[in-house]
Amino acid sequence: MTVFEYNNDIIVVDAGLMFPEEDTLGVDFVIPDMTYLINNRDKVKAVIITHGHEDHTGALPFLLKEIDVPVYGTPLTLGLVKEKLREHKLEDAELIPVMPRDTVRIGAFSIEFVRVTHSIVDGVGLGITTPLGLVVHTGDFKLDPTPVDGQLMDFHRFAEYGERGTLLLLSDSTNAEKGGFTYSEKEVRRAFEDIFSNNTGRIIIATFASNIHRIQQAIDVAVKYGRKVILCGRSIVSNTQIALSLGYLRIPKDTWLKLEDLKNLQDHEAVIITTGSQGEPMSVLSRIATDEHKQIKIKEGDTVVLSAKMIPGNERSIGKIINHLFRRGASVIYEKVSEVHVSGHASKEELKLMLNLIKPKYFMPVHGEYRHLIYHSMLAKKMDIPKENIFIMKNGDVLELSDSEARKSGNINAGRIYIDGKGYGDVEEMVLRDRLRLAHDGIVLILLAIEKVTGTIISGPEIISRGFVFEDASQEIISNVKELLTSTISGLERELLSDSSLLKAKLRSTLKKYLRDTMERRPMIMPIIIEV
Amino acid sequence: MTVFEYNNDIIVVDAGLMFPEEDTLGVDFVIPDMTYLINNRDKVKAVIITHGHEDHTGALPFLLKEIDVPVYGTPLTLGLVKEKLREHKLEDAELIPVMPRDTVRIGAFSIEFVRVTHSIVDGVGLGITTPLGLVVHTGDFKLDPTPVDGQLMDFHRFAEYGERGTLLLLSDSTNAEKGGFTYSEKEVRRAFEDIFSNNTGRIIIATFASNIHRIQQAIDVAVKYGRKVILCGRSIVSNTQIALSLGYLRIPKDTWLKLEDLKNLQDHEAVIITTGSQGEPMSVLSRIATDEHKQIKIKEGDTVVLSAKMIPGNERSIGKIINHLFRRGASVIYEKVSEVHVSGHASKEELKLMLNLIKPKYFMPVHGEYRHLIYHSMLAKKMDIPKENIFIMKNGDVLELSDSEARKSGNINAGRIYIDGKGYGDVEEMVLRDRLRLAHDGIVLILLAIEKVTGTIISGPEIISRGFVFEDASQEIISNVKELLTSTISGLERELLSDSSLLKAKLRSTLKKYLRDTMERRPMIMPIIIEV
Repeated sequence: MTVFEYNNDIIVVDAGLMFPEEDTLGVDFVIPDMTYLINNRDKVKAVIITHGHEDHTGALPFLLKEIDVPVYGTPLTLGLVKEKLREHKLEDAELIPVMPRDTVRIGAFSIEFVRVTHSIVDGVGLGITTPLGLVVHTGDFKLDPTPVDGQLMDFHRFAEYGERGTLLLLSDSTNAEKGGFTYSEKEVRRAFEDIFSNNTGRIIIATFASNIHRIQQAIDVAVKYGRKVILCGRSIVSNTQIALSLGYLRIPKDTWLKLEDLKNLQDHEAVIITTGSQGEPMSVLSRIATDEHKQIKIKEGDTVVLSAKMIPGNERSIGKIINHLFRRGASVIYEKVSEVHVSGHASKEELKLMLNLIKPKYFMPVHGEYRHLIYHSMLAKKMDIPKENIFIMKNGDVLELSDSEARKSGNINAGRIYIDGKGYGDVEEMVLRDRLRLAHDGIVLILLAIEKVTGTIISGPEIISRGFVFEDASQEIISNVKELLTSTISGLERELLSDSSLLKAKLRSTLKKYLRDTMERRPMIMPIIIEV
Repeated sequence: MTVFEYNNDIIVVDAGLMFPEEDTLGVDFVIPDMTYLINNRDKVKAVIITHGHEDHTGALPFLLKEIDVPVYGTPLTLGLVKEKLREHKLEDAELIPVMPRDTVRIGAFSIEFVRVTHSIVDGVGLGITTPLGLVVHTGDFKLDPTPVDGQLMDFHRFAEYGERGTLLLLSDSTNAEKGGFTYSEKEVRRAFEDIFSNNTGRIIIATFASNIHRIQQAIDVAVKYGRKVILCGRSIVSNTQIALSLGYLRIPKDTWLKLEDLKNLQDHEAVIITTGSQGEPMSVLSRIATDEHKQIKIKEGDTVVLSAKMIPGNERSIGKIINHLFRRGASVIYEKVSEVHVSGHASKEELKLMLNLIKPKYFMPVHGEYRHLIYHSMLAKKMDIPKENIFIMKNGDVLELSDSEARKSGNINAGRIYIDGKGYGDVEEMVLRDRLRLAHDGIVLILLAIEKVTGTIISGPEIISRGFVFEDASQEIISNVKELLTSTISGLERELLSDSSLLKAKLRSTLKKYLRDTMERRPMIMPIIIEV
């Protein structure tokens, strides 16, 4: 999410989510902290979405729940957004469709939409004319010379921005580590042709539900080789229907069959297109791989194609899916062994071309991790953009542009909000820390009932644990612990026994030390004292 | 771990560990279930270690604690093993050093050690002559044409095994997905030279502590560019001392300085070699990156080299370390952006060469995940080994060879043993399942004290949670839950109140449904009822 502000006008570009990392246990996804926007809600005039990927649209429902503003985007982007808003019961949101080369005036800003090529159809960059000059935002892009739909990136407009003079360029850094050019999406077709021409069994292709061009290519090759297509999975069916209805996808009549029809097809007549390329546990592919899918059972002769990047962090889950599929007799083809995927992001040579086209005065690498921003800024330096004109921003950093200069001017509150389950807002750091501890060594409860007045122990100490040791198998440990605590308690002054917080601290520290020394384990320890 | 058995003789080849995956929370490492060996302890005559990597040696202490047998290995392998056994107080283990081309007779087996090249020095494959014929085990290998120490792989012996006739080949499959040849370890030197000749700041190189040749090359280049070397980290110092004392590493006099000497060096005079290339949280590199290392603080001009593979599953942690280092002003160089690492395992063309050299009757791809075994078996099929002579084995599968045939004959109990903390044996599945649940949504305790005879509630219901919601911030949730449970209890028959297991079940199901419906969360729920 990028915010542009001039006097009393704010426009928001994109509102994405990210998926959680290993140390945010149980978190479903992460959205940006929008406090600044909420505190300035009267200034916010519009949200502009560059393309329909989750990392650019996923936080939109949360933003619109707080601030009711119009959303601008191209037809497919809005088609996908609409579906998402419907799930959040936000059908009334104002969605304003725009086409590439359209210009809209919003407050102090005049925003032109410029076609880019990317791994989703209908992506745009933005030419934002401000009172101080032109700001160009590429959105996510690659320079695909042969896009599947023939709709080239609008080089001409970007060139014109360079001619006109651009104050600031914000450009996609995701692939700034990669040398050369990113291959065209059409290259994937060669791999598909190879697979279809060499296999007579069923073919199952897993890809991202939003990758309409990939789905188009799978369908085209299926038609060429006389196969019918079955789309399997909620998101892929929904996205395909949206893309079809808006004219972004062409499927010949009688090609798209229902899952129920699979049993009537011979193996060489069937292609199944589905999701789950990242090894997501509840996805269709995952259920197929573990033999938990009702209609699709893997058999000898099946070919499964993972037509997607193995996103870092997902490799182990993906690897397991591949192993399962092989074990059940399928042949599995994936990025590492065949060219069944190309990236949607510009590599170094494309990034250089963009910098050469735009020739910005100031440059801000965006999108990607910090190291990608650094590599992108190194490119810019090599291309003679002065170091002091390059701004590497952290979340919340503010870049202030004036007639005479650009400078970082402080930052606003802009952390991460962890979403777990229904919108009960944030999962606090404290809760995540507890989950990490629980995950590592489990929890041990010490139960004790004490007569309030006399300090006599009525029952306990009892030990209950979860995720620590299996109690049936570890009776010795449990009885040692009980014995230790009993003797600890009996050695205590009567005074301590009547102060339950002191007693709790004593029991906790005693048990903590014992478990650390004897077992090298550090479970969470919770003494529970009931005073009667 | 591979077990060879003939009549009353068993030899064990390697005893490795693996590192845990995301769903085995809190597990330190995983070793093979050795029940079969323990049940046949009298037959076990020796353990043979092919090389000193953890995935081939890590379970050795656990094996030797159960079965006291001699361990055979080359000097460096035993040097590393000795250190590991010392940590487990197993100094008395019988370690028998062997050299490449040595042959030892153990029971029915005659075992020849054959030099291979790999990412650790002193690795060997095995030529095992059995009463039924020759079995060749490659160990981990690559065909490095220019090894750093000049010690070539013993092609001649492998060729001779092919001439003689080999019944069964077991060959390393780790890189069976990769086309072409794996680069020589010496190629890394070019990248190092490039880095050293272009930087005048401090250089920090992180690699695996066991990669003696990588360390040698870093030292050689440091000497060439007039830098002193500081080794930082327990394992890298210990391994370097072992390798030095055994003559596997050459360090010119006055080159190796202590960490305390760092402050007396100018930046262009210093190289720090350390571990932590996988983003391990307690490693030196990780502490440097997060500014928690006492003596080493990153500053502008520092160059950090991650000279190691980004092992799948570790990419996110590694990425974070890289981001941290960049943020503190270092320049960071890693596998994706420079040739600072080569693999230690043979790629497809090398694997083919090995198959062509040995021409085995039967073939068993080993090492690597199931998909790697499959890809290796595909290579073998292309090279005209009949499908029915190729055996892809799962853990515990038994291959039975006789005069006339080879066939899978059932399997033995051979699962995984999860080790967490000091050797309290296994972490049970049940415990791991609990940890997963705790990790995902935390735990909610319902406390209730009841008068045993009358069933009157003396105190409670109290709600305590960890990893669920932050109680201070979520008083509304907690008080709603309390109210719900209070009304549930007051609606219950007296009879139910006096049966604590029924009461627990009722409380658990009520709260479970409530939290699922209102929050979409599924914490572990534990009613605790104290009867007084």
